Amino acid sequence: MSGKSRPNAVAGAVAALLRSRGQVEVQAIGPAAVNQAVKALAIARGYLAGDGLDLTAQPAFVKLDMDEEERTAVHFFVHALRVPAP
Amino acid sequence: MSGKSRPNAVAGAVAALLRSRGQVEVQAIGPAAVNQAVKALAIARGYLAGDGLDLTAQPAFVKLDMDEEERTAVHFFVHALRVPAP
Repeated sequence: MSGKSRPNAVAGAVAALLRSRGQVEVQAIGPAAVNQAVKALAIARGYLAGDGLDLTAQPAFVKLDMDEEERTAVHFFVHALRVPAP
Repeated sequence: MSGKSRPNAVAGAVAALLRSRGQVEVQAIGPAAVNQAVKALAIARGYLAGDGLDLTAQPAFVKLDMDEEERTAVHFFVHALRVPAP
């Protein structure tokens, strides 16, 4: 995702993929995009709470070749966790 | 942490707390600080890999009163996971 991505829209997509597949990967390049990605994950956690699901993310660095220039991106491995019933 | 925090130093502290207590909380206000926090978590994952531990983070928004102004921070609940031996 980019720094211009709307966190609410990305959060909806993340929540839908976590409900259907249980995992999703999100990649961001640059501080603005990383911030938007984290916001989207925090919003998606809220969307999933009503479904008895929680979200957890594992960040890693990945190197990308873009326009013959090497850029470092942050890659989030995101998983759904089932919340025990109360 | 702030946007001026050094990710390597924060990563060392996060890794040490995860080794000793299994969990730690990291809070960041603003895009630069959120980006530094995520970098620190990604670096800490690398530090922990040699100990048979992995790291996973759950982001949430928190509202803070600072200088009589309400600011929204991102709060990361960070847990250590034991990696199964190969």
